Amino acid sequence: MIDWSPDRAAVDRALARICDHAASHFPPNLLEAIRYSLAGGGKRFRALLLLAAYRAAGGRADASTLAAAVEVVHAYSLIHDDLPCMDDDDVRRGRPTVHRAFNERVATTAGVAMVPLAAHTAFTGALEVGLTPFEAAAVAREVMIASGAGGMIGGQLLDLESEGTSLDLDGLERIHRGKTGALIRASTLVGGMAAQATGDQLHALAEFGEAIGLAFQIADDVLDITQTTERLGKTAGRDLDLNKVTYPALLGLESAAERAEKLVDDAGGVLAHVGLLTRELETLARFVVERES
Amino acid sequence: MIDWSPDRAAVDRALARICDHAASHFPPNLLEAIRYSLAGGGKRFRALLLLAAYRAAGGRADASTLAAAVEVVHAYSLIHDDLPCMDDDDVRRGRPTVHRAFNERVATTAGVAMVPLAAHTAFTGALEVGLTPFEAAAVAREVMIASGAGGMIGGQLLDLESEGTSLDLDGLERIHRGKTGALIRASTLVGGMAAQATGDQLHALAEFGEAIGLAFQIADDVLDITQTTERLGKTAGRDLDLNKVTYPALLGLESAAERAEKLVDDAGGVLAHVGLLTRELETLARFVVERES
Repeated sequence: MIDWSPDRAAVDRALARICDHAASHFPPNLLEAIRYSLAGGGKRFRALLLLAAYRAAGGRADASTLAAAVEVVHAYSLIHDDLPCMDDDDVRRGRPTVHRAFNERVATTAGVAMVPLAAHTAFTGALEVGLTPFEAAAVAREVMIASGAGGMIGGQLLDLESEGTSLDLDGLERIHRGKTGALIRASTLVGGMAAQATGDQLHALAEFGEAIGLAFQIADDVLDITQTTERLGKTAGRDLDLNKVTYPALLGLESAAERAEKLVDDAGGVLAHVGLLTRELETLARFVVERES
Repeated sequence: MIDWSPDRAAVDRALARICDHAASHFPPNLLEAIRYSLAGGGKRFRALLLLAAYRAAGGRADASTLAAAVEVVHAYSLIHDDLPCMDDDDVRRGRPTVHRAFNERVATTAGVAMVPLAAHTAFTGALEVGLTPFEAAAVAREVMIASGAGGMIGGQLLDLESEGTSLDLDGLERIHRGKTGALIRASTLVGGMAAQATGDQLHALAEFGEAIGLAFQIADDVLDITQTTERLGKTAGRDLDLNKVTYPALLGLESAAERAEKLVDDAGGVLAHVGLLTRELETLARFVVERES
């Protein structure tokens, strides 16, 4: 069993540091909303993945600030996903969503403010592991590209707009490559960039991230059906209520689970090929399909 | 009379190019909303200012893409400012606001997607004028800092939250240094960075931008009282309706107008001191207080 708690604690401390640094120039309630969303008790999956990729590629410095950057983007995406004009959800990880705990105005503003905050955090975090400002800028750009309309934000909108429409497997996959895949891909890629991995290794890390990102979404769809609201920390069974096209809806529950398994196995093969399949990365990839929430 | 139409046309073409490049990887309705907001027929004041600062500092290349970056941020700020949970406005520059022309979900998403889009545009635009990738990254960072919680986005929220509260001149100024000042400051600063101005010149350009940014907001407050909705292209008299603290409310109409004049005069002096007060920059600064909409 790998103990992830030191990594999680380091990322939590990095997130607290970011907020402390911002305290002098952010409006207080905006900062409070950002803190609230970052302290949501998530699994820090993207940050752990970044740190594991960094170490797999030979990185030895403290990359916790860099890892915090992808968690800032992820937390932002959850705030906006829960807004009344989006998924309109009241509960997230067992707590009131940000627009419920604060209000819609603060939630909308906090979310969008977290985009430049993530860029800044990625840049600073990349400098901290010893990259040049030029390399650090490339890292920040990857995080921004993954967050943007061609990545996460665009996928999120496509996902919402697909409610009640028919969609084939290709269409569904396109949505989720953006919505879930882009940031997970950026996490593994940026981990490699921070460790100055070779071109082949970076390519493999990106492919690995993209595949397990897709598997993550398929597993999410499966859990929405098989788990309770209590276990999930968010409303279960919503996909069915919203008449959403999901992997289980298209493939059946069992085939969907099998597809996620296969993606994870293949992704492991890609990494093994460039000598980067560490036990940490393998464990995180397996977690994607074996988790219960 | 300076003819700004070639600059405006170049910026409009740059904005159209940005959208064309995005067409292959942005969701279609998201891109349409972004195009709609960018084609709103604004004065392109921030872009003109950037171009004038660039030329004042000796720049000779085509900086229209870089200038477009600050217009992307500005257009984003208008989309979100008009949202139901913000200012809740239906008309902007004589057209339906983005959430009216599309819907709230698309408007929220388009706005936030324009933040990484602006970072990307600033970086690309800086490369186009011949900066190194390192210098271009510094330019993109200035645009992001100006957009963030410590700048425009934070100021916007503070402004909305101040409705119905009492506020002194210092408090009001703090809001507007963020809401309006930060991006105008970034426009003149980045124009100078693109032309590789000296440290003293950059400092003066930033100070100039900050001062006329504040004058711009004071003039806005004055126009809200003295002009009609038709002339403004947005609802006039809203500040009074919302019981908002404004410069005219604190200082009286005449003193407010005088304060804006003085800010503009002093700002010109700062630029003259470092040899950058061109006729173009002087004209744009005067425009701030002499415009009728």
